[in-house]
Amino acid sequence: MDRITLAHGDGGELAHQLIQQVFVSYFHNDAYAKFDSALFHIENGQLAMTTDSFVVKPIFFPGGNIGKLSVAGTVNDLAVSGAIPKMMTCSFIIEEGFPIKDLKQIVHSMAEEAKKANVQIIAGDTKVVERGSADGIYINTTGLGIVPQPLTASIQEGDSVIISGSVGDHGIAVLAARGELGLMTHLESDCATLYPMISAAMKASKNIRIMRDPTRGGLATSLVEICEDFQVTIELEEEAIPLKREVQGACELLGFDPLYLANEGKVVLIVAKEDEQNVLDAIRSFPEGKEAAVIGTVRSTEKGQLLLRTPLGTTRRLYRLSGLLLPRIC
Amino acid sequence: MDRITLAHGDGGELAHQLIQQVFVSYFHNDAYAKFDSALFHIENGQLAMTTDSFVVKPIFFPGGNIGKLSVAGTVNDLAVSGAIPKMMTCSFIIEEGFPIKDLKQIVHSMAEEAKKANVQIIAGDTKVVERGSADGIYINTTGLGIVPQPLTASIQEGDSVIISGSVGDHGIAVLAARGELGLMTHLESDCATLYPMISAAMKASKNIRIMRDPTRGGLATSLVEICEDFQVTIELEEEAIPLKREVQGACELLGFDPLYLANEGKVVLIVAKEDEQNVLDAIRSFPEGKEAAVIGTVRSTEKGQLLLRTPLGTTRRLYRLSGLLLPRIC
Repeated sequence: MDRITLAHGDGGELAHQLIQQVFVSYFHNDAYAKFDSALFHIENGQLAMTTDSFVVKPIFFPGGNIGKLSVAGTVNDLAVSGAIPKMMTCSFIIEEGFPIKDLKQIVHSMAEEAKKANVQIIAGDTKVVERGSADGIYINTTGLGIVPQPLTASIQEGDSVIISGSVGDHGIAVLAARGELGLMTHLESDCATLYPMISAAMKASKNIRIMRDPTRGGLATSLVEICEDFQVTIELEEEAIPLKREVQGACELLGFDPLYLANEGKVVLIVAKEDEQNVLDAIRSFPEGKEAAVIGTVRSTEKGQLLLRTPLGTTRRLYRLSGLLLPRIC
Repeated sequence: MDRITLAHGDGGELAHQLIQQVFVSYFHNDAYAKFDSALFHIENGQLAMTTDSFVVKPIFFPGGNIGKLSVAGTVNDLAVSGAIPKMMTCSFIIEEGFPIKDLKQIVHSMAEEAKKANVQIIAGDTKVVERGSADGIYINTTGLGIVPQPLTASIQEGDSVIISGSVGDHGIAVLAARGELGLMTHLESDCATLYPMISAAMKASKNIRIMRDPTRGGLATSLVEICEDFQVTIELEEEAIPLKREVQGACELLGFDPLYLANEGKVVLIVAKEDEQNVLDAIRSFPEGKEAAVIGTVRSTEKGQLLLRTPLGTTRRLYRLSGLLLPRIC
């Protein structure tokens, strides 16, 4: 049998075989339970929990696939919350007829990516829907982490805003892979597990106020949320924001703003000015952080506005992403 | 705006409004975070974690809807593992064009059901896919619970098998609601949060060996799994298994075996013989457990077989569900 059938989702014999032959064989984990939940022990403390469903189209794209993305995305959400990622569940909604070899490749990528962050995939679920009721495969991952020392989020005037690398790579790579835009590019998605890099940054400074991974909605939307949530005003220097030539070119061609394009392997940090260099050094010591840069400053601790200073010296206010339709980017 | 658009899933302004107006307003919870993960404190101990995606068709059915089911299903998976359900995440994949009033009704049901188990919904995610790339709405829930005292799973010869009520109600109610079978019935799904009842059963006996909620694959598949996992042989008494007349009638008409039909509000327990009556009394004190019955006995602690003794006195072996196609039952 080389394709998923409805019977793979009915909880019976074929479902049992699929779990054994695909999920257990790649995720091999003792927590795969004789109970209806995975059981594990955790020490007294602060936990972080986050969930994301992934519907990216196409499923395989330069630099990754939906499986790699689903693990990296959830690991990163934990990491930017100051957590050490520990456990993850994964749940699949699969369209009848989906090739089992593609499923194996996706699950293999998930296992590889989980290893990079030392995360255990401890529980799962598979549902199969009829042909035409999903587009190939959708994956949910939910992560649990331990927070040794919560971020203070006490953002102060003069704090520096750092991005770990160029913006918009994932957005343009995925759009190009759809083949709908007549766009040819060698650009790869930045899809990556950032926990090791973020952990190094946190060791380099006790004054990281807050972090975000600017996925859907892009760098601008992530920073607008920070500005609103904490009522601080941030000014970005447009020229300081790292941008790959291919992304810039595609944006000019297609009328996109790279500040609103999705990233899947970047972190934006707000850090005390005096720790700026330490954090930059730590991040730049990782391949995925080589292009890290200071891109802005916290201008005041009121008003809650995100401002962009252009190369011409003018300043404009940025808002949340609004009406730019890039469905199924993650 | 009365329908979900692609822009509700882009992480921008409309997504923000949807989160505020629907999810935060129903789930209102402080853990809805200024961080990318929900943060909470937990005491030193054993945890249980479980995940499920729900794709039930139709979304609204007699006795429940996909929202109620998605919370009850995950609460029950925690409860049968001996856990006290504490936290839950929920993640939505919604088809473009889905009515926002239906979404509100679903989210309202989730909030109501979470209250019954005293579970906090602490994090969420929404993805929107184009028309035709999903069938209305799919929901993932992932639950986290605390396990005060793990079940021993030390099943012994002579132990009793108890079911909390009639089997197959959910399966037949959902099939009938699809309107494809020409079946008219007043039968409702048994969809229910069982934590309070299970908690009472655990207080009534320290000798509950193991529990399962027999969902997909039905009572027979759940018990086959127990028999195989723990290498015990169980003999069921066919006549003792509670069965509603409507379910029996529908099964005779359609050629289904009720032992393989999904339940969403039942628990099967293996209990020391001497505690049988205590556990029955505890379960029967709840409306959803009134029809609880002893349905079988552990015959030996080897071989790993599930046997069914028929009213005629013959015994046949039962296997996992195999080839009975009831897609999207949960």
